Amino acid sequence: MRFRTYLQPGEQRIIRELTASVAAFHDYEVEIAGELADENLSKGSETSGYHFFLAEQEGEIVGFTCFGEIPCTRGRYDLYWIVVKKNCQGKGLGRELLRKTEEAIKTRGGQKIYVETSSQEAYFVTRRFYERCGYLEIGRFPDFYEDGDAKVTYCRDLPAE
Amino acid sequence: MRFRTYLQPGEQRIIRELTASVAAFHDYEVEIAGELADENLSKGSETSGYHFFLAEQEGEIVGFTCFGEIPCTRGRYDLYWIVVKKNCQGKGLGRELLRKTEEAIKTRGGQKIYVETSSQEAYFVTRRFYERCGYLEIGRFPDFYEDGDAKVTYCRDLPAE
Repeated sequence: MRFRTYLQPGEQRIIRELTASVAAFHDYEVEIAGELADENLSKGSETSGYHFFLAEQEGEIVGFTCFGEIPCTRGRYDLYWIVVKKNCQGKGLGRELLRKTEEAIKTRGGQKIYVETSSQEAYFVTRRFYERCGYLEIGRFPDFYEDGDAKVTYCRDLPAE
Repeated sequence: MRFRTYLQPGEQRIIRELTASVAAFHDYEVEIAGELADENLSKGSETSGYHFFLAEQEGEIVGFTCFGEIPCTRGRYDLYWIVVKKNCQGKGLGRELLRKTEEAIKTRGGQKIYVETSSQEAYFVTRRFYERCGYLEIGRFPDFYEDGDAKVTYCRDLPAE
């Protein structure tokens, strides 16, 4: 497994395909992931504010994260996406991607990472994943995505060296 | 006082000036307000997702709001900005702008409005304003903007007719 900190031209397509292949994501979410990749490639990682971190196996992208500093904050980052290819799940790659993304965020001066997800049953595994990776629930906004579907916000303080 | 629901080409400058004239906003916040106006004018209100609502007095823009539907939600809107020119404050214009913005959001099918602000003393008047306009605090994330500065999130359900 190799990791890299940049997208290459044309890889928007792969970001969309990978996101679409994961059952948890809706079409409009796939489109948003693709748009962030478009922004990253057209404006550059720094100007766009959307940074990508990729896992590659034998030349194929099998997972990625997308993150960025939250505007008007100092060193607070949002993790927008973490996606692992279907047949690569359950082998610890998500955890490894998350840890390496946290390292990349720390290197940039990041101190806290926020992540948002749904309260619905379909996201139970996702929530458990964040909890097991040391993320704490800091808020739950009822009926946020739609009636009956709350937004759950998690946060992790990046441990000082 | 006249109100309108669109920005005109070149008015990015006025949005920046108006925002900069209000002591509560930092330089980087002024820049963000300007960028949203740029996006609105270059991509159009619908494609950009950033809608503007303006108050005009004798041909001069004296206040505005900027709002947009929150991605991945149904009918949930963020109020990104509400700005009233310094010497027009304290006369109920902010409340009127907010009420008319709520009407515009309802017309678009919006059901809830979210607004975020700082826990710092400098934003006490802002928080009181939202509370008096019927917004409820639904979350407080400590040390969000920086250490000691929490993000306070308010929400208002738009009353059904």
